Amino acid sequence: MLTFYFSKGSSALAAHILLIETGTAFTATEISIPNGDHRNTAFLRRNPKGRIPVLDTPDGLLTENPAILEYIAATHPEAGLLPKGPYPQARARALCAYLCATAHVAFAHLHRGARWASKEASLDDMRARVPDNLADCAAHLETDLPFSPWALGAAPTFCDPYLFQFTRWLEGAGVNITTYPKLAEHRAAMRARAAVQQAMKLHDLR
Amino acid sequence: MLTFYFSKGSSALAAHILLIETGTAFTATEISIPNGDHRNTAFLRRNPKGRIPVLDTPDGLLTENPAILEYIAATHPEAGLLPKGPYPQARARALCAYLCATAHVAFAHLHRGARWASKEASLDDMRARVPDNLADCAAHLETDLPFSPWALGAAPTFCDPYLFQFTRWLEGAGVNITTYPKLAEHRAAMRARAAVQQAMKLHDLR
Ligand SMILES: N[C@@H](CCC(=O)N[C@@H](CS)C(=O)NCC(=O)O)C(=O)O
Ligand SMILES: N[C@@H](CCC(=O)N[C@@H](CS)C(=O)NCC(=O)O)C(=O)O
Repeated sequence: MLTFYFSKGSSALAAHILLIETGTAFTATEISIPNGDHRNTAFLRRNPKGRIPVLDTPDGLLTENPAILEYIAATHPEAGLLPKGPYPQARARALCAYLCATAHVAFAHLHRGARWASKEASLDDMRARVPDNLADCAAHLETDLPFSPWALGAAPTFCDPYLFQFTRWLEGAGVNITTYPKLAEHRAAMRARAAVQQAMKLHDLR
Repeated sequence: MLTFYFSKGSSALAAHILLIETGTAFTATEISIPNGDHRNTAFLRRNPKGRIPVLDTPDGLLTENPAILEYIAATHPEAGLLPKGPYPQARARALCAYLCATAHVAFAHLHRGARWASKEASLDDMRARVPDNLADCAAHLETDLPFSPWALGAAPTFCDPYLFQFTRWLEGAGVNITTYPKLAEHRAAMRARAAVQQAMKLHDLR
């Protein structure tokens, strides 16, 4: 049995969607970031990074969105969400790396600037850049991805829930998604899925 | 035949080591970041991200260190650098995601703060935080990884060159690596490898 640690509205939504989508048997434990639960000794002992999401597997703990998402897909081959072959898999991993290290990090400068700077003026300066940086990411993804109709082509992959989460960062940064018709269409297609609706409900999202 | 685009002294060193280590047949093309070659129209047409490293494969272009490193390992199974099984592979991917999205990003605030803020004072503020942030990453990795003697245990994996590159970020940020004996030992073990010495020479590094 897997235990999934999540905070409502966080990037854990992506793996939460994938766990439901693949019919994985799991227990979800809420670690509320707004309440500071991720800074509690008990959670830090489990995950010294103090970050969400975390997936506790029979083999040990897993952190980091790209690793958790691909693990869920790899352990549920019947769901068909892992591309086949080294290059298609590498493309999927490149998309996850970009979402994790460029897009998520760009978004994190909105509320988590204190990770990288100390003065209030610097944090304001960072915040002001977030919409443009996320718009750059959106423009890149809009032209880079096949979107036919899923992120990587005709077949859905473990990247789709993460790309869906990206459109939530756009929203959080006040970037108008209608400027990016393919991303907007992907978001609409994701929202129509039962697993997405179920996960969003568990995160108190509409 | 693969074409590898690199800039000397950049994070491309990790994949460069792995290409040599696996005996991959490849052509290396220098795209000098100090000279601004990564901003040339020809390179941007190929890789709109304008970043290094890039691996041009028979199936198409690949960007992002984690994706490139695992692709090289996956296409050279005889080198034995890809862990076996979903959980060991996920652990490797989690390490790569952390190096890419937390450690590399922490380091990037030293010279690339202009990605996330505009004012000179903010960039100074960011720069001042880099040594502490990288020291935090080092402390985390020092206790989190098995190091026996390689990053993920007894067998070397595609993560080792990336962890080696991490110790170069420590160095670049003025963090004393001797504070982290396991990381220091890993670095020494990597430096003793012929492929590492050969790649470093190609990057004009000692
Ligand atoms: N690279 C990590 C980032 C994880 C992360 O930063 N998660 C956020 C929530 S979306 C968090 O835990 N923030 C709490 C904090 O920064 O204290 C991943 O992809 O899993
Ligand atoms: N997430 C990317 C980061 C790539 C990256 O930022 N590379 C640096 C060199 S280490 C670069 O190209 N910098 C040029 C610039 O920022 O203009 C990866 O892991 O490949």
